[in-house]
Parts: sequence; structure tokens; C-alpha cells
Amino acid sequence: MNLARMTDNLVGQPMFQLKERIGELEAQGEKILHFEIGDSCFGVPQSVAQETISSIVGGNTHYANSTGIDELKIAIAKATQKEYGFTPNLKQILVMPANAIIDFVIRCVCDDQDEAIIPDPGFPTYASVLNYTGIKAVPVFSKALEIANRITDRTKLIIINSPSNPTGEVLDEREIAMIYNRAVENNLFLLSDEVYSRMIYDAVHFSPSQFDRCEKRVILLKSFSKLYSMAGFRLGYAIGPRDLIEKMGLLFQTIFSCMPVFIQKAGIKALEEDIKDRMNYYRECRDIIVKGLNEIEGISCPLPQGAFYVFPDIKKTGLTSKECARRMLENRGVAVLSGSDFGKNGEGYVRLCYATKKEIIKEALKRMKDA
Amino acid sequence: MNLARMTDNLVGQPMFQLKERIGELEAQGEKILHFEIGDSCFGVPQSVAQETISSIVGGNTHYANSTGIDELKIAIAKATQKEYGFTPNLKQILVMPANAIIDFVIRCVCDDQDEAIIPDPGFPTYASVLNYTGIKAVPVFSKALEIANRITDRTKLIIINSPSNPTGEVLDEREIAMIYNRAVENNLFLLSDEVYSRMIYDAVHFSPSQFDRCEKRVILLKSFSKLYSMAGFRLGYAIGPRDLIEKMGLLFQTIFSCMPVFIQKAGIKALEEDIKDRMNYYRECRDIIVKGLNEIEGISCPLPQGAFYVFPDIKKTGLTSKECARRMLENRGVAVLSGSDFGKNGEGYVRLCYATKKEIIKEALKRMKDA
Repeated sequence: MNLARMTDNLVGQPMFQLKERIGELEAQGEKILHFEIGDSCFGVPQSVAQETISSIVGGNTHYANSTGIDELKIAIAKATQKEYGFTPNLKQILVMPANAIIDFVIRCVCDDQDEAIIPDPGFPTYASVLNYTGIKAVPVFSKALEIANRITDRTKLIIINSPSNPTGEVLDEREIAMIYNRAVENNLFLLSDEVYSRMIYDAVHFSPSQFDRCEKRVILLKSFSKLYSMAGFRLGYAIGPRDLIEKMGLLFQTIFSCMPVFIQKAGIKALEEDIKDRMNYYRECRDIIVKGLNEIEGISCPLPQGAFYVFPDIKKTGLTSKECARRMLENRGVAVLSGSDFGKNGEGYVRLCYATKKEIIKEALKRMKDA
Repeated sequence: MNLARMTDNLVGQPMFQLKERIGELEAQGEKILHFEIGDSCFGVPQSVAQETISSIVGGNTHYANSTGIDELKIAIAKATQKEYGFTPNLKQILVMPANAIIDFVIRCVCDDQDEAIIPDPGFPTYASVLNYTGIKAVPVFSKALEIANRITDRTKLIIINSPSNPTGEVLDEREIAMIYNRAVENNLFLLSDEVYSRMIYDAVHFSPSQFDRCEKRVILLKSFSKLYSMAGFRLGYAIGPRDLIEKMGLLFQTIFSCMPVFIQKAGIKALEEDIKDRMNYYRECRDIIVKGLNEIEGISCPLPQGAFYVFPDIKKTGLTSKECARRMLENRGVAVLSGSDFGKNGEGYVRLCYATKKEIIKEALKRMKDA
């Protein structure tokens, strides 16, 4: 029987596809070093675990407000004031899984004939969602000038992601302002994926939300997964224009009803956490891995300013990204993602997440050098 | 700025809309008796809470396999064998929130010009999803003969829900067989929402999955929310044809990555739970509320065979469903849903969920009698 053409363009996410092959190798007794997943060696903060537990024991296991419990929204509003200098109205906030925010924004903002500008290399979900919904993706290096040049009459949405997954690059205030101004001039929505906004080393993070307080065109995408190592909680939130957030809220209500309350309660505690120690640790990991990679023949790795990824240039090895990643896994037991998984501009690179134990980073560097 | 027409038809779910008004009344000090939500006065089973907690303490807070952890899928396969007499292949199982399964099946099965037959009165998500995706809904009383009569060349999907939300009616084997045979003759998919399959009193539950083992056209929709009072966990699963489940899995991976592992672990424990005591309690509640409602002038209430709802006929009161529900809330503090929220055929009825404390049921009956 035929399945719907509507969703025929769905493709898997590279990370999950690789997981299968890794599982096979590990089942054969191989000791695989993991750099493929954007996850951390840290567990969730103690206060987060404790709050989840108290909340379950306290019976917070029933339905809740579909857009997020007020207590969490208030905490989010406060955190937004602290990080961005403005306090959103609670009706501008929608609590939901971060990945799904990308899907929801695209489906609530773009019509069939519209175009969306996305970073390339960039987080694969942008392209995947545009692909399966049949909306035209316009992939560009996430530089303001290039973005401006690719705006057409059909452009409806620009997606930016600073610090970037996979490159760790940070857009400075001048570039953010330029992109924002182009969005204003052309009356576009601007989805700013700031999942890594507080995971920053030698740069200053700047957000377009500071220009319009998410009241008109900027949608801020935030997640608890990376900063607080809460990937397994699937918790995030969007801050955006009220009519858009209302529409996305109806979509969320229709499909998911609500987020678990005990997970939302955990989110409140996470927002109170001090992340300094984690970030210091990640900085040390970054410095070790960048130095080590640059000592390997044929590999050149810039110092990323944010997030917890390196995106080394492997072109001088003469291998394609896919082949390089395959060999690193099969011959050296080092799992990385092919740069081409992040778009055409990612060809010639591989991505490693370095939020892991330092011994593992050192062992991986050793295995790669021996190759 | 215009939002996308693609999702312009989104409407809210009645239950969540009512929650707002109830919140206002409660803030004013009104003591509202709750019969509006399909949720239970029971908490989650002790073993479920305990497993969630151990799992969080044990650090199961990272990414997982996007289609569900094998351990849960194996438990689901066993539970399916026990309840339905067949063991699905693990690749036929997708673990995800139950409500979203409706959305995913519709989007992965129906094209623009297709039609889907849905029960009316019926669970509002069926109509909401068809409405926002622009696929034609053909609402029918969920009787086999009427379903057969409404199949056209464009029909692609039939949705059934036995026991029914909101009526509690159960389709017998003869009717299920007739619907299944029509699906075979016309080469249709058949989504069988069996969220209440084990919540049954004086009837035998029969599932179309027993005919094709979910290998070809039947998709079984199951949830942990009602049977185990785990509404706040947002956990469910689909069992269906492998190619469809694979496609739905890609959609889930693209949008949500995966379900929290600690929630999946809790699901394993739930499947081991004995539900006899709960069901005996619900039966007593059902008998009290049906008897009480039938003693009220103008109300006539059949004895439901399954689920935990009554759907009394209020036509003799001379009120519309909406007006009746409004008056019960505003004048008597009894929160119920208007039957018309479940489709046109629900006009003249209201829905009450009786999975609550017996004192509350008795107090509500008293308040309604006094009206």
C-alpha cells in the first residue's frame, strides 16, 4: 500500500543512523570512543535529579497546562531578563522539546512556495524539516553578507545558530545586527537557535532577540539538553511573537497535549544552576583536542569560540568526509560525524563533540595519530 | 506578518480551553468538581514511580535509540502476545506519545486529496489533525455498516476507537470483522485506537490487529496514560506495518530525537502491573454515576461497557450541549465537557470522566439534582 507522498522525503538524522553501526561494533567487543553525539559526560545537576524525584513522589504525574506550567514560564522570563536584558510576556513563551520547535516554526511560518535560509554547515534538523515539508531550503555559510545576498521575494524565514553546531563559530554583534536589519527590511521571521548561547569561551554572545524582544519577528530557541546535560529530558522552549507562539501552542496541544510536569519542575531548578565549572571543564577539553588535532598530519582545526564541538578540516588527507569518518570508526574505533551530514559546505570536515573525559580525548588523539 | 496557511486551521483541544475558565473560577474561591479531564484520581503505580526514580539516579538521562529502547519494545511485544495473541516484530513497534501517533499516522498515510473516516462522537484529536492538515474527515457513528457506506474511492484510512471515548461503547467481534473486511476490500489503513482496551466491564474487547498482526494495514495505538494513570508521562506506542512504522520513526527522529529513557523504563514496570483493583474501583464509580444521572429529570444515561466516561443524553433538558456544560460549571461548579466537542453527533450529550473519588461523584450528583 502506498504511504503518503506528503512525508516521503523524510530521511534519518545522521547521529541516530551511526548509533546502529556503533552498536554492532560494540556488540563484537570493540571499544569505541564516542565523539559523535552532542551530549556530555556530565550527568544532570544534583538539584535537577532531586527535583524530578520529589515531583514524581509528590504526584505531579497528571495533565498540565499545554503551553507550560506558569512556574516554569516565570523562571524562563527571569532567566531571559538576566541573559538578554528583556522580560518576555508569559504568552510569548512555549515550553516544548527544542528539536520540535524547529519543525513547528517552519510549519507555522512557511507556506508551500516559501523559502527558508539556513546555515550550511548547520544542525541537520533545519534541512530535514524543510525537506520533508517540501519548503525550499537555501543553505548558506552563516555570514551576514551571504545571507543578505540570498534573500528573494519568496524568503519567509532565516534560521541562524550562534554559537554554531557543528563549527562552534560565534556571530558578533555587527553580523547579528546586519542579519536582523535584513529581516526587518524584507519582513522576514528570524529563528535564532541559541541552544549554545551560554556555552561560550572567548567571545561575547549576541542575540537578535535583544532588538525586538521577540515581539515581532525573532523567535528564540532554547534547550536544557546541552547546557545542563539534560538531553534525556527533551525539554526546551521558544520565545516569540504572541500570534506565532499561540499557533505553535495549538499545534503542540493538538499533537502532544503537554510536557510532563516533573520534567518542567526539573527545568526550573536547572535555570538556577551555576554552570561555571562545567564550562571551565569544556574549555580545557577544547584546548586539548584542538592542540592534538593540529598535531596530526593532514588535519587542521580552528579554535571554536562556543558550543562543545570541533570541526576540523580533513581535506589534506585526500579523503571525503564520509570516508574519513568511516575509517576513523572502523579502523580506529573513534566515532565522529561526517561534516557532509551538516550540509554541502561541511564536505572536507568531520565533527567531534569533546564534552567527554580527558583520558578519552587523549586516547582518541593517540589512535588518530597512529593512523 | 502572515503566518503560514498550512497550519491556519488549528483549533484548541476543548479540555485545555476549559481548563483556563476553571482556573479563573478556582482562583475566585469556587470549589469545582472535576469531571472534564480523562485522567484518574489514582497516582501512578508505586513500581512505576520507583523505577522512574532509580532510572534518574542511575543516570539514564542521555540520548537513546529514537524508536524506543529495546528493553521496552520487548516488554511491549510480550504484552501484545498476552493481550492479542501475536508477537509483533520489534521493527513494528514505535515508542512515542500516543496523541502524536494520530498525527503521525495521518501525515504518513494520507495525501491531500484523501479522506479519512473517523468516529463521531469521537476523540477530538482525530478531527483536529485532519482539519489542520487539510485532509477530508468523514465523521460517522462508529458502526460497521455506516463506516462501510461512507467508503469512497478517496478513502485511505479508517480510525476506530473501541472502547470509545466519549461513549464507552465497545464494538463486538462481528462489527470489528466487518470493518476490517471493508478495509481489506478497499485496500485501506485501519488505525485502531485501543487506549482503553483493557478498561472494559461487561464486554469482550476485540481488536482488528488480531486479523493481520499489524503487518499490513492495521495500526494499533496504545497509551500508558489511562490504564496506569500515567497521563503526565506522555508515553504510548504504535504497532503497525514495518514500512509505515519506519516512516513514522523517521518523523519522530527528525522532530523529537527520542523519548526520555527514564520514562520508557517506567513503562516497562507499568506493563507488569495488575490493574484489577483499579478496574473494580472504576466499575463501582460507573455504577454510582449512571444510576445517579438516570435519577435526574431530563437526563438519560446508558451503561458504558468500557473506558471511564459516561456520555448522558441531555436533550430533554432543552439545552444545547455547550449551554448545559456551561451552566453545570458556572451555576453548579461541576466541570464536564460538551458532547459537541466530540463532533456533530455529540450534540445533545455531555461527557463526564468518573475516575474520581466516590464522594465527589455523589456531591456532583447532588448538585446536579438540585439544579
